[in-house]
Amino acid sequence: MPKERVRLGMVGGGEGAFIGAVHRIAARIDDACTLVCGALSADPARARASGAALGLDPARCYDSYAAMFAAEWARPDGMEAVVIVTPNHLHHPVAAAALDAGFHVICDKPLANSIAEADDLASRATAARRIFAVTYNYSGYAMVRQARAMVASGALGALRVVQVEYPQGWLAGPLEATGQKQADWRTDPARSGPGGAIGDIGSHAFHLACFVTGAMPEAVLSDLATFVRGRRVDDNAHVLLRFADGARGMLWASQVAHGHDNALKLRVYGEAGSLEWAQEEPDRLWVTQAGEARRLIVRGGTGILPEAARVTRIPSGHPEGYLEGFATLYAEIARAIVAARDGRPIPEDVMFPTVADGAIGVRFIAACVRSTSEGCSWVRL
Amino acid sequence: MPKERVRLGMVGGGEGAFIGAVHRIAARIDDACTLVCGALSADPARARASGAALGLDPARCYDSYAAMFAAEWARPDGMEAVVIVTPNHLHHPVAAAALDAGFHVICDKPLANSIAEADDLASRATAARRIFAVTYNYSGYAMVRQARAMVASGALGALRVVQVEYPQGWLAGPLEATGQKQADWRTDPARSGPGGAIGDIGSHAFHLACFVTGAMPEAVLSDLATFVRGRRVDDNAHVLLRFADGARGMLWASQVAHGHDNALKLRVYGEAGSLEWAQEEPDRLWVTQAGEARRLIVRGGTGILPEAARVTRIPSGHPEGYLEGFATLYAEIARAIVAARDGRPIPEDVMFPTVADGAIGVRFIAACVRSTSEGCSWVRL
Amino acid sequence: MPKERVRLGMVGGGEGAFIGAVHRIAARIDDACTLVCGALSADPARARASGAALGLDPARCYDSYAAMFAAEWARPDGMEAVVIVTPNHLHHPVAAAALDAGFHVICDKPLANSIAEADDLASRATAARRIFAVTYNYSGYAMVRQARAMVASGALGALRVVQVEYPQGWLAGPLEATGQKQADWRTDPARSGPGGAIGDIGSHAFHLACFVTGAMPEAVLSDLATFVRGRRVDDNAHVLLRFADGARGMLWASQVAHGHDNALKLRVYGEAGSLEWAQEEPDRLWVTQAGEARRLIVRGGTGILPEAARVTRIPSGHPEGYLEGFATLYAEIARAIVAARDGRPIPEDVMFPTVADGAIGVRFIAACVRSTSEGCSWVRL
Amino acid sequence: MPKERVRLGMVGGGEGAFIGAVHRIAARIDDACTLVCGALSADPARARASGAALGLDPARCYDSYAAMFAAEWARPDGMEAVVIVTPNHLHHPVAAAALDAGFHVICDKPLANSIAEADDLASRATAARRIFAVTYNYSGYAMVRQARAMVASGALGALRVVQVEYPQGWLAGPLEATGQKQADWRTDPARSGPGGAIGDIGSHAFHLACFVTGAMPEAVLSDLATFVRGRRVDDNAHVLLRFADGARGMLWASQVAHGHDNALKLRVYGEAGSLEWAQEEPDRLWVTQAGEARRLIVRGGTGILPEAARVTRIPSGHPEGYLEGFATLYAEIARAIVAARDGRPIPEDVMFPTVADGAIGVRFIAACVRSTSEGCSWVRL
Repeated sequence: MPKERVRLGMVGGGEGAFIGAVHRIAARIDDACTLVCGALSADPARARASGAALGLDPARCYDSYAAMFAAEWARPDGMEAVVIVTPNHLHHPVAAAALDAGFHVICDKPLANSIAEADDLASRATAARRIFAVTYNYSGYAMVRQARAMVASGALGALRVVQVEYPQGWLAGPLEATGQKQADWRTDPARSGPGGAIGDIGSHAFHLACFVTGAMPEAVLSDLATFVRGRRVDDNAHVLLRFADGARGMLWASQVAHGHDNALKLRVYGEAGSLEWAQEEPDRLWVTQAGEARRLIVRGGTGILPEAARVTRIPSGHPEGYLEGFATLYAEIARAIVAARDGRPIPEDVMFPTVADGAIGVRFIAACVRSTSEGCSWVRL
Repeated sequence: MPKERVRLGMVGGGEGAFIGAVHRIAARIDDACTLVCGALSADPARARASGAALGLDPARCYDSYAAMFAAEWARPDGMEAVVIVTPNHLHHPVAAAALDAGFHVICDKPLANSIAEADDLASRATAARRIFAVTYNYSGYAMVRQARAMVASGALGALRVVQVEYPQGWLAGPLEATGQKQADWRTDPARSGPGGAIGDIGSHAFHLACFVTGAMPEAVLSDLATFVRGRRVDDNAHVLLRFADGARGMLWASQVAHGHDNALKLRVYGEAGSLEWAQEEPDRLWVTQAGEARRLIVRGGTGILPEAARVTRIPSGHPEGYLEGFATLYAEIARAIVAARDGRPIPEDVMFPTVADGAIGVRFIAACVRSTSEGCSWVRL
Repeated sequence: MPKERVRLGMVGGGEGAFIGAVHRIAARIDDACTLVCGALSADPARARASGAALGLDPARCYDSYAAMFAAEWARPDGMEAVVIVTPNHLHHPVAAAALDAGFHVICDKPLANSIAEADDLASRATAARRIFAVTYNYSGYAMVRQARAMVASGALGALRVVQVEYPQGWLAGPLEATGQKQADWRTDPARSGPGGAIGDIGSHAFHLACFVTGAMPEAVLSDLATFVRGRRVDDNAHVLLRFADGARGMLWASQVAHGHDNALKLRVYGEAGSLEWAQEEPDRLWVTQAGEARRLIVRGGTGILPEAARVTRIPSGHPEGYLEGFATLYAEIARAIVAARDGRPIPEDVMFPTVADGAIGVRFIAACVRSTSEGCSWVRL
Repeated sequence: MPKERVRLGMVGGGEGAFIGAVHRIAARIDDACTLVCGALSADPARARASGAALGLDPARCYDSYAAMFAAEWARPDGMEAVVIVTPNHLHHPVAAAALDAGFHVICDKPLANSIAEADDLASRATAARRIFAVTYNYSGYAMVRQARAMVASGALGALRVVQVEYPQGWLAGPLEATGQKQADWRTDPARSGPGGAIGDIGSHAFHLACFVTGAMPEAVLSDLATFVRGRRVDDNAHVLLRFADGARGMLWASQVAHGHDNALKLRVYGEAGSLEWAQEEPDRLWVTQAGEARRLIVRGGTGILPEAARVTRIPSGHPEGYLEGFATLYAEIARAIVAARDGRPIPEDVMFPTVADGAIGVRFIAACVRSTSEGCSWVRL
């Protein structure tokens, strides 16, 4: 049986964008997907130029996502799934249209700018019986999988404390005032949604904490702040978390933290042990069991569980990075799509964030915004 | 003029105690103090045996602090200052008696178990015109002095975010149930005061944050928790901080964090830069100025300010540790006492935490306890 | 002008191999190359199965490299360059045949098992006017490019000391006795060549030192050792280096160093400064200028030079790893091949190790073997 | 029985000196010694002023060591041991005179400037039956003791590879030309002896490697170099080591390595495991057992052996530093002297470097100088 790659189309991600290129590399790394078409920009000329630079067939570089969905559906070799890498406010309309047109969806996070939009997408995905992935990409790192598997195995005992943080420094000044494209839309609530730091990176931190612990906070208490004068969204978020059974957490997301790039870090403490993982050193996981010395477990090395080994490409000591973690999601999504294509059930070990996870993330952002507006009240999720 | 060391007497710190030995080494390191007497234990036999082991004159090993104060006051070579290293609940009676008897006081933290006690000591110290130091010892580290001086110089610009944490793991299990002496009294509210982790180590973290930033939170919101069944005080503290002018902070103190020993860490972010310091690597300070690469400034190295250079003993790369940081407080306190002895004003650059700082720490603990009891309200300091 | 990827064929790299898969991912990441055919195994069934697993056209899965060269040359869409990922002893015959057949060559390192073979390949490449790359892949890391550019700019002043090391622990026991495929051929001098650790990883360390410093040792003195009983090649190499103008170096390569995976590390000291880079944290470069604090320069961050920026895919703090560094070589080689295809000169900024670098590496290995055999004499390169 | 501290006199260490103050603090920390007299400078006025600043009895501040030895011997409370902290060339005459006068000796390293001098001191110490300690102070660190005990226990299996280095950057420029006191004498062969970096810090690295492994190299091969124009001693030393039973080592000592302060680091690899220790993070020891993940063992923490626990003052996570490591030597030496005073044998567990270790260090320096002068030959120790 010949290998048949999953055929992808992309909305957004034209020249000058950031995350679109990341998705394309990630989709290529494990050779399970192929980009066949795109509506890469709302500007037709830019859409075409971007497609040409990528080597796309000019006939499959569309001026609009609507046109792409229509034309591709009609082709026998048409795209199977759409990758949505637009600013946040377009996630809902594009994804809804894609589902309606019968495509699987791979959407960047946050899923949508309101709970209503998010719930709507979840409903549509269920109704359409389509696969809907949300690219909380940090869950693709092998050592994040290892951490999750260790917690699930009971190695840490009952969950007690979760400390997660995601500091960045790139918005410490009014970068949006310079017209920098990324800063511009990410600080514009009409496009980025109600959350600034809490939405852009806090949602990543929240997902990571939930993914690894397998637990969901019941309530959050948030102190969002805006430090850069004139900025319209928060740029620093302090959040307290309360989990079922008494576990507690702290979440810090900041875009004004000089000296940090993407310093996402998770620490989980249970009754019987703890673990610590930092995104900027993704191949390493610190593990402490009660009464033992700290151990450093590395991707590909001693003590690796099957859940992590399965998503490892190269031996220990040769670092895998952000693109490989992201690629793992694409490889997993592709396995699901191929199963769907073949009429098989999705393999049980396939793991990627779905529209349900995306909807939870949107609820988290909304709850944080509300908590601060209420003077830092506890808001149930 | 011959060198005349400051004569110290100690209350508490007999055999089996921990912090008393630390104070004695710290007092010796810079050779500015000498221990001349002690009421080292409430048990007379143990008091004498402890004194003998230290080489104290048996005649100056007292059965009670009251006896010591009386006898030493009568000697021409009597002690000048008392070092109080008892469990917390004895700080107030011993210190009050010492002030009344005319001695300077060096008291461990937290200063007292209630705001009323703390305020009483502050009043007595003022009235008695005695020096009263509280050993928030982390403020003695050279790189903490460097950090404070850099913030004060404006290097970081307006303060924005303060992240401070002090995780430990030693009380992750019910150690007090084994009768271990340190665990026993530190988890007994009658002796340790109302705070567990928040009092024992949270107060250190709070002082460090205030000392370095030169700022005082206006309000705190706290989620204190107790994870070990049956424990009578908190063993994990999550605190949000609000400073004047909008700066925000997070403080985490935990005694149930497997994998940590004394992982006190402070990060300060301002409009123009940031710094990061960790107690377990005390000779290092990470500094980032906006738009520049991260720099690692080391004790004794390039970029050190006079405030740090002044309290440095050996060249860079030969680590100074906890005892040296503690010793700096003793050297500073001794300078103050010698000045008082000589009728001179205390030199302007002398820097050590005083009874006022101690009282603020007690207020902080009380505010955190109250906030949690009120469902995590904001409590003004 | 449509984008036209460079068409690659691969010799070796069938199922069970390690480095072949690495080359394939690396070639895909920047989408400048496409694998069109292979002689993936000497075993025809395995060759076909391996090709199928990769999605290759069955008609282009060959039983031998000779067959592949002949058939592909005849196709208008035939391969342009061969990727050689066989055990070392086959590098020479395959590469020689490829050059004779008119193909460009991308060959793993070490280039060959003798100086004569290496020189022969260099001569043939020149005569055939073909591009010949040798995948000293660590030279593709962005921060290695940064280091090289900083040295070239004079930031470190005159070169003084070079410390380079590459410890691994995977061969600390007699792994070859278990039949493990990688251990088997790498410890067999008939296939791996005369060097064990010195050839497999010492040659990488040597190339890295030369690449970054822009300097070539004039002489080496080597103490090669074999610690695992019965092993036929060295597994630990201690080498002293002497450069022109008096600079000195030390090189350590080991396969018996428990606790290390691929801990390649380079430190360069000049009259005016120093730098330090470690392969397991490849996005970071420590830089010290005389009289200044240590700085940590990161890929994509402040202080990055054009030579490093040019080979950077994603922002700082999102780690790029081993595969991206390797991919940079493929992207560079592809630029050269496309230029050759178009009859243009190779762009001046294209940078990848060539057959000349490969031949130097073979000389280095031979010199180390000879030095040890002579009782640790200085051997000129 | 009252505690009676060991009475020390000091030769050298007056105002402006560095190591004298270190010895005095180290001697104080554990309260086992007391400084009672000094010949602190060859300049009588400076000697007196230095003594006054230390609070010494003016009558016991001597103009010469000869005068001190005579006067102190005559006192019933006279000094018991002399601490020699002069430039190296004075070690021999002072120590010889001290032994002749009947005193124990505590001498800084290197022991002497020639093998003949070193052997002479060893002979005299034996004949005089006096304790003679040489302050290779790094052997006092608790985790160095731990490392030694682990090797001795067989945890690493048969010794294979030793990598030790001691880079500094402070002499990267011609500091001696400015008259800086430390640089001045340490680069003057008449005072520092034939070795520059190899003597000043290479000897420390060598001792550390021998102390931890319990092994002695049989031969060394050295490439000493001088990078700063006009300097009269080496400032960079590359040394290969050969131990009995085939183990090999590398030693690097440098004073021209920008970016390093006192970066002494030891790595030991055996058949069954490895360990790694760095002086700038002295409380930590990395340990790897074959087939296990890397573990980080910390002073005072899990896995600590009695040999390390015995020399630990405070709990894990509160760093002990250079002065505490140095103090351990003084505490050990004091135990030996007290035993000698009491006519008891020296306790078996007392451990400090002796005149024999000092003599080996001098041989090591001489062998390195000779090896380089012979074109990098192997020289037997």
